[in-house]
Amino acid sequence: MSDFPSSVSIMEEGPREGFQSEPGVISTENKIRFIEALASTGVQEINCVSFVDARRVPQMADAPDVARSLQKRQGVKYTATWLNPRGLDRAAETQLDLIGKIFLSASDTFSIRNSNRDRQSTIADQKVMLDAYSRLGVPLEKAYVFTAFGCNYEGEVSVERVLQAIADLLTLARDAGEPVPRVVLCDTVGFANPLGVARVLDAVRSRWPALELGLHLHDTRGMGLANALMGLRLGISHFDASCAGLGGCPFAGNKSAAGNICTEDLILMCEEMGIETGIDLEGMIECARLVESIVGHPLPGKAMKAGSIRRIKQAVRNA
Amino acid sequence: MSDFPSSVSIMEEGPREGFQSEPGVISTENKIRFIEALASTGVQEINCVSFVDARRVPQMADAPDVARSLQKRQGVKYTATWLNPRGLDRAAETQLDLIGKIFLSASDTFSIRNSNRDRQSTIADQKVMLDAYSRLGVPLEKAYVFTAFGCNYEGEVSVERVLQAIADLLTLARDAGEPVPRVVLCDTVGFANPLGVARVLDAVRSRWPALELGLHLHDTRGMGLANALMGLRLGISHFDASCAGLGGCPFAGNKSAAGNICTEDLILMCEEMGIETGIDLEGMIECARLVESIVGHPLPGKAMKAGSIRRIKQAVRNA
Repeated sequence: MSDFPSSVSIMEEGPREGFQSEPGVISTENKIRFIEALASTGVQEINCVSFVDARRVPQMADAPDVARSLQKRQGVKYTATWLNPRGLDRAAETQLDLIGKIFLSASDTFSIRNSNRDRQSTIADQKVMLDAYSRLGVPLEKAYVFTAFGCNYEGEVSVERVLQAIADLLTLARDAGEPVPRVVLCDTVGFANPLGVARVLDAVRSRWPALELGLHLHDTRGMGLANALMGLRLGISHFDASCAGLGGCPFAGNKSAAGNICTEDLILMCEEMGIETGIDLEGMIECARLVESIVGHPLPGKAMKAGSIRRIKQAVRNA
Repeated sequence: MSDFPSSVSIMEEGPREGFQSEPGVISTENKIRFIEALASTGVQEINCVSFVDARRVPQMADAPDVARSLQKRQGVKYTATWLNPRGLDRAAETQLDLIGKIFLSASDTFSIRNSNRDRQSTIADQKVMLDAYSRLGVPLEKAYVFTAFGCNYEGEVSVERVLQAIADLLTLARDAGEPVPRVVLCDTVGFANPLGVARVLDAVRSRWPALELGLHLHDTRGMGLANALMGLRLGISHFDASCAGLGGCPFAGNKSAAGNICTEDLILMCEEMGIETGIDLEGMIECARLVESIVGHPLPGKAMKAGSIRRIKQAVRNA
């Protein structure tokens, strides 16, 4: 079990995916405060806001204000989510760092229920996005596969469907003359288990040995870090995570859907295993406590309650 | 990663270790209701109560009443915890199933701070317990090693200290003419990480290849199921767990110490990985919801909020 990566990168999803599923209104000031605190921890990328229909996602109505007013720090990528060229154009009017993303759901039913778009429509949408990226000179950085480990509408999602979704995304990018730096496999509805993660990763690796992969995991049923461990064991060195375990997918057809795996709990596990993240754990724990006070209700992160192990060991050594 | 056990056994710690750290008074009736509900799930062993000083652990003052009044079901072991022959004698006056346990802490400081007994005193205590087991004809079933993965008073606990504690326990049992059916390695303070689990298990296996091992894990920092996964990967087929993630160790020097790993979340992970537990997941989820209503505050278990994956997949198939 010694073949773990020596370092991993973590993309912080809290301000976007996390806040998006919070029912209470969060002020623009608090959103900016949280993002700026996150940026001080050494995290390399923060997904700050969504440029989406404010009628559908009222929490993101102030996305342009957040994006315009935050104080950027060198070395951090401040990114955003959009679903169409209009959203991209709105992001392009701000100081955010534009990175191109395309996506496809392995489960067609999820795609239809989540965004009212079937597979062919989604593929057509991604072509439109790739054109828009080309027009604005935005490099393609990530291709996301949703429901890669199961779907609450379809149940089992076969590995073949996941491979097909990746093949479709790679074809789309190739036709647009763009390489795909990373494919991110998403456990959108929290169905993944460690053996399922291994099965999908092994199949993808067999077909595309050189493809850079990332995992976007949710901790819906408590297996989040166990799934991440299996990913690490199989050489995955990129994870999306959410500070304090904030969030959840309000459109995933399950009101109790939990948020992404918790950023500081993942950092703590990596740190204890000797895997570098480049992120200051104590700082991320402070961010978790900050965002818990912002949302005004308990959040699921555990390291924020128990504290880091390193700090206790240091106190013992200094005693 | 296919060398997982085909089945595991889980010992339910909720009524004992879980309730013991609950600040509010729980009625005798509710304790019995919870134990009887647990027994209906197929779980093989339930640690029901502690026979300890009621001034130190007021929650366990009604242990004799709980033990005397519960309706036993065939095939379930209803066990208890005690720290001295007086406690064992009190347990022997009830209908509980008596199984012999001895213990030693790998960290001497933990032992002193937790129970005011150093290593030599604890070893002497265990001799006294073995005599008492012999007197009552109680078979020795488990030897526990506390703080096997670190200590919040000493920090790092070397693997050598863990091996020494096991050697001491095995010597004690041999001198008493008793075999040791199982050694349970405890992450008493929630310091374990998956690599640390692997390191300790590998060292113990190298020295005693045939020794049956179990893990008693806490989910203090969110790594509980990741640590369990590493244990499963290395062939561990016995776990202690706590329904709904109830509990924590009130004497572990850390007020935010979380409870044991959550029974139903562990069952769900096993079920999804094709590992038999013999326990009905839906029934255990009902127990978790029951005990949350009994303690009157949210508990950390996740499957109880999101539901089982199997049930969603069945609904999809039947639709």
